[in-house]
Formats: sequence, C-alpha cells, structure tokens
Amino acid sequence: MRAAVIHAPFDIRMDTVPDPVVREPGDAVVRVTHACICGSDLWAYQGVAKRQPGQRIGHEFVGVVEAVGPQVSSVKPGDAVVAPFVWSDGTCAFCAEGLYTSCAQGGFWGQAGSDGGQGEAVRVPFADGTLVALPPGLDDGTLIKILTLSDVMCTGHHAALAAGTAAGQTVAVVGDGAVGLCGVLAAARLGAERIFLLGRHEQRTAIGLGFGATDVIAERGDAAVEAVRELTGGQGAHAVIEAVGTEQSMQTAIAIARDGGSVGFVGVPHGGSAGVDIGQMFDRNVSLRGGVAPARKYLPELLADVLAGSLDPSPVFDQRVGLDGVPDGYAAMNGRSALKVLVVT
Amino acid sequence: MRAAVIHAPFDIRMDTVPDPVVREPGDAVVRVTHACICGSDLWAYQGVAKRQPGQRIGHEFVGVVEAVGPQVSSVKPGDAVVAPFVWSDGTCAFCAEGLYTSCAQGGFWGQAGSDGGQGEAVRVPFADGTLVALPPGLDDGTLIKILTLSDVMCTGHHAALAAGTAAGQTVAVVGDGAVGLCGVLAAARLGAERIFLLGRHEQRTAIGLGFGATDVIAERGDAAVEAVRELTGGQGAHAVIEAVGTEQSMQTAIAIARDGGSVGFVGVPHGGSAGVDIGQMFDRNVSLRGGVAPARKYLPELLADVLAGSLDPSPVFDQRVGLDGVPDGYAAMNGRSALKVLVVT
Repeated sequence: MRAAVIHAPFDIRMDTVPDPVVREPGDAVVRVTHACICGSDLWAYQGVAKRQPGQRIGHEFVGVVEAVGPQVSSVKPGDAVVAPFVWSDGTCAFCAEGLYTSCAQGGFWGQAGSDGGQGEAVRVPFADGTLVALPPGLDDGTLIKILTLSDVMCTGHHAALAAGTAAGQTVAVVGDGAVGLCGVLAAARLGAERIFLLGRHEQRTAIGLGFGATDVIAERGDAAVEAVRELTGGQGAHAVIEAVGTEQSMQTAIAIARDGGSVGFVGVPHGGSAGVDIGQMFDRNVSLRGGVAPARKYLPELLADVLAGSLDPSPVFDQRVGLDGVPDGYAAMNGRSALKVLVVT
Repeated sequence: MRAAVIHAPFDIRMDTVPDPVVREPGDAVVRVTHACICGSDLWAYQGVAKRQPGQRIGHEFVGVVEAVGPQVSSVKPGDAVVAPFVWSDGTCAFCAEGLYTSCAQGGFWGQAGSDGGQGEAVRVPFADGTLVALPPGLDDGTLIKILTLSDVMCTGHHAALAAGTAAGQTVAVVGDGAVGLCGVLAAARLGAERIFLLGRHEQRTAIGLGFGATDVIAERGDAAVEAVRELTGGQGAHAVIEAVGTEQSMQTAIAIARDGGSVGFVGVPHGGSAGVDIGQMFDRNVSLRGGVAPARKYLPELLADVLAGSLDPSPVFDQRVGLDGVPDGYAAMNGRSALKVLVVT
C-alpha cells in the first residue's frame, strides 16, 4: 500500500510499504477513507520533534474495518470506524478511569514500527479498546466532521474541561490554530457566555467567530493581557485554553486567567517551563491542568452530538487533497497557507 | 506596645511601637494572646523576601477583641477571635467565592503600614470580613490548636484539596515542615488511605506519623521518586502536596504524581519555574494547583473539628516563648533546632 513516510525534515513522501495484516488476536486492519494533517505533525516535519528516517506519520483517521483478529468483538469487517490519536487496551486501570492516553499498552500512530494515519490502511492494536464504530451509511460530510474527533475536537474539549469551563463563564483561548478553534467550539458547547479568541490570522479568527467566539484579540504579549483585563473589568478570564505550546503563549495564558481560575493547556509544550510564572500562579491561585487529550474518552459523547447535528468542527479543514497531495499539504500548513489539510483517499 | 520589628536580615527586635487604634469604621483592635513564627517568616528573616527596615512581622494570631469601629457587627470587645493570615473585606466577588486571598482590599499582616501578629496587639481592617469569633472560655491548649488555623493547618488543607485528595487515595507530601505535617493531617482527615511523608528530620517525621503518615521516605531527588514508584506499583501518588517551594521539591512532586493526578503546591515558590516539568505534566496529565491558602474560607469548618476534639495540629509547636523570646525563636527556627515556635504573650 501507499503511506506517508518521513525521510528527513521537510521530506515527506508517499512510499509503497507493506500492507498491514492482523498480527495479534486483538488487532484490526482499517482501510482509511479520511485522514488529515495535524499542527503537531509539523513539529516532526520541521525536525523539532525527532523522527527516525522511514517512520510513518499521521494520527487522525476514519475508515472501514477490513479484517479483525479472533479476539475483536466490538467491530467487524465492513464497519465504519473512527480512531483516536492514541491506541489503548481499554482494560487497564487508566483506561477504566478514562485516561486512555496513559494506557501502559498504548501507543501513537506513526511511532516506530506502527502504521500512520496518512496512508491507505492501518493495523490497529487493541481494536476493542481503541476504535469507535460508526452507524452505517454516513455521508462524506458527516465522516469529515467525525474525523475531527480523532484529535483536534477532543483536544479542544479536553482543554476546555481542564480550564474548568462552566456555563456562564468567560473563556479565553490562546491560539487560532485548529485546536484553539475547536477549543472555542468546546467552550461554546459547554455554555461559556463570553469567549475571547487570541489570534491574528483573519481567516482563522473568522472561523472562531463562527464557532462562538464573542471577541477576537489580535494583540500579543502584554498588550493581549491588557486587552483581556480591559474586557473583564480587570479580572481576567475564568477559564483559559492554551493551544499553542510556546513560552509566550503559556505566559499570556497564565497572565489573563482570573484569580482562582485555570489554564487548560493542550499545546504540545515546546517552550519548556520558562513561560510558567509560578509566582503569579501562587499569588493568584491559578491552576495549570491538561496535557495529551484522552480522545477515546470523549469520542462517544462528541460523536453523539455530531450525529445529532449539533456539533460541526469541520470548518477547520480549509484544504482537501488526495493521498498524493500529502507532501504538498505539509508544505501548505507549514507555510500557513492552509489551516488544516483534509486527506481523502 | 511592644511588637516584633525587622530591622535587617537576621535582626528582629522587640520594639516599642504606637498602640493600635480603630482608624476606620470597620476596624477592630485585637490584643494578641497567642502568636507564632511561620516558615515563610524565615524568608524575610534571611533577607530573601525583601522588607523595609522597621516593618512589623508575624501573620498568625489568636486574641481578644479590645475595641471595634461602628460598622463592626460580628465581634465585640471581650470576644476571643482567630485571624487568618490575610485580611479581607468579606464582601467583594472573590470573598463571596471563598477566594479571600484575592480580595482587592485585602492585605497581609506586617505589610508596610500595618501591624504584625508578633506583638501585643493588632489593628484589624475589615474585622467582619476577617476575624472568626470563638466560643468563650476556651483553655490555653484549645487556643493553641486554633492558632494553627491562622495559617499552617489551613494551608495544609488547601494543599490537600488542590492535590485532589479523596477518600481511599494515596497521598504524598513533599516536605516535613509545619505545613507539610499539616498536609499529612489534612490528607488523613479527608480519608486518604496511604500517606507518604517525604522528609528526613526524624523529630518531624515522627510528628507526621502521629498525624497519619503511613510511610516516611527519607530519600531525595531521583531516589525519592524511585521509592514512591516502588510503593505504588510503579504508578505514583494520586495526590501530591508540595510544601517546600524549591526547584527540587517541585521536580520531585511532579515526578511522583500518578498520571492524571495533581500536585497541590503551597510552598512559597523560591525556585522559579525551573522545577516545573511541563513536558512530563503534558504527557501524563499531571495538574498543578494551589497557591496562597484562603484560610478564612476553611476556618469555620476546621474550627468546628478542633472544638469537637477531632483535629489537633498543635504538635507542630515544639518550642514556646514569650514576646521577648521572639528573636531567639527566629534563630532557633532558622537553625532548625525548632520546628515551629509558639509565642504566648
């Protein structure tokens, strides 16, 4: 089959690789129908996150089950499924608690030795603990909405929860990437009354306004902090979603949180802890919570909303390519001419 | 009256200062019967926390109301009272939410222009929002227990809550100072099943064992992390109380937290953010919560337990002095020959 392979920084190619097969009794093989490129894939693309030459890439996909091992009972060949960005056994103590990302037998698509989501098919370990079956006969548009539940929408939801978002509150979202925009949508879904989106890319903030943002703050750094303080009578936002992962974004997130509030951080940290102002957190009782989102936990709930027609994160996709277009998709996202690239096989 | 005055690092003297009087309609004047020296006072004593020469010091006291302004309705002359370590107006949005430490009109005893707790009397601003009245006729032993509610016991309780302590859990406490020991007591009170106390001062850890610690871990750094992992089947503690405030203690606290767990931090941060391993927090969904404890919020609940005889943090006091002995008390705590010094006027 063909799959995206990372050979070196800025060198992703569609190569011919071995077809996946059922190896373990709990495996499934899923033929990918829809995949996409994540902002976090760019860290690998840029060489910031190290990869061995030849590793696969991509961790978001929707597809159709092609084969299952003898222990798989929750899906069968022919079923449409969505995969979270981490696989998990579904049976350990962490899975039982909903923290699927800490499953001792878990792993990430594209890690050495495993398939990635940007390819024709994927061997899925622990299919019962990982995949979520979809109703039959969904149209392309619905499957594209569901694809966002692989990662970005669940990650935005995780951030909103970690930030302690509650009905009637003021929520600030730092970052207008796809995760930040999904954070806006998640905050709106949880009943936030005011949602500030901190971002300066007009095409993106326009999507954020469509998702429920009430104010766009284009300033950065101290000016952004001042703008949020001004909009909140000096107090700051009850809940802050940090969806970037740099030193400056973390600094801003903590500074704009209201005393006693929380920063929900889901931007893969690339700034170290230098942006974490522990003195300010202490003086003002600001919490820092979050991390890698247990998408598998949130999938059933968010899927129900997508199927009911009340949740549609698909506007985060602004470019569509086939498998051959994956390398160009990376270049487009890296050059910021695309927000998030959809891959339809 | 006489009061402790800080003239320079390592130079605290009992000076004669003006008697406090009611200045604002909401003021009370409280004659101090019991005060104490806090580990955080040592930062000022050592010159790490800057003070203007002549500032008062001490922020924990129990006493008797001597005079009140015309707007004070909750206490009257002759009432025994306990003061939290921060005063607060009791009426603002933050006070209404229980975050008294963020009161816009709040302040700390001993800040420039205000009285400190280590003296004969204190002018208390916003007496109704600050003081908690005690039943009449309490004996000396009970008042000493109640004195811990000014700060250390409420701070330990705040840490235990911020760490997410719940019945049946494993809690680890980093630090065997008075706050750490009160954290042990708070965790036991909240129903923790196992309580690890990380500390190496045998007289202190002995108090911790009396407060409910089930295991004492004398190791530090990586060895301490290994010890906690070994005691928890590799998983770490559900809830971690960080009661020191250095880079190493924060590092240890995060490292020994179970995935999905929380670090409740109440050690005044003196290590900057370098100990905050944001990558590990992200990968394992470890939260960091806490800060300056809103003692006023917790006072009624913990006071009820002290009066009912079910809560006794007073073993943290291992040395007793009169007002004249305050300077020696500082030297003793700084030299670690005393854990916490009680001042009986």
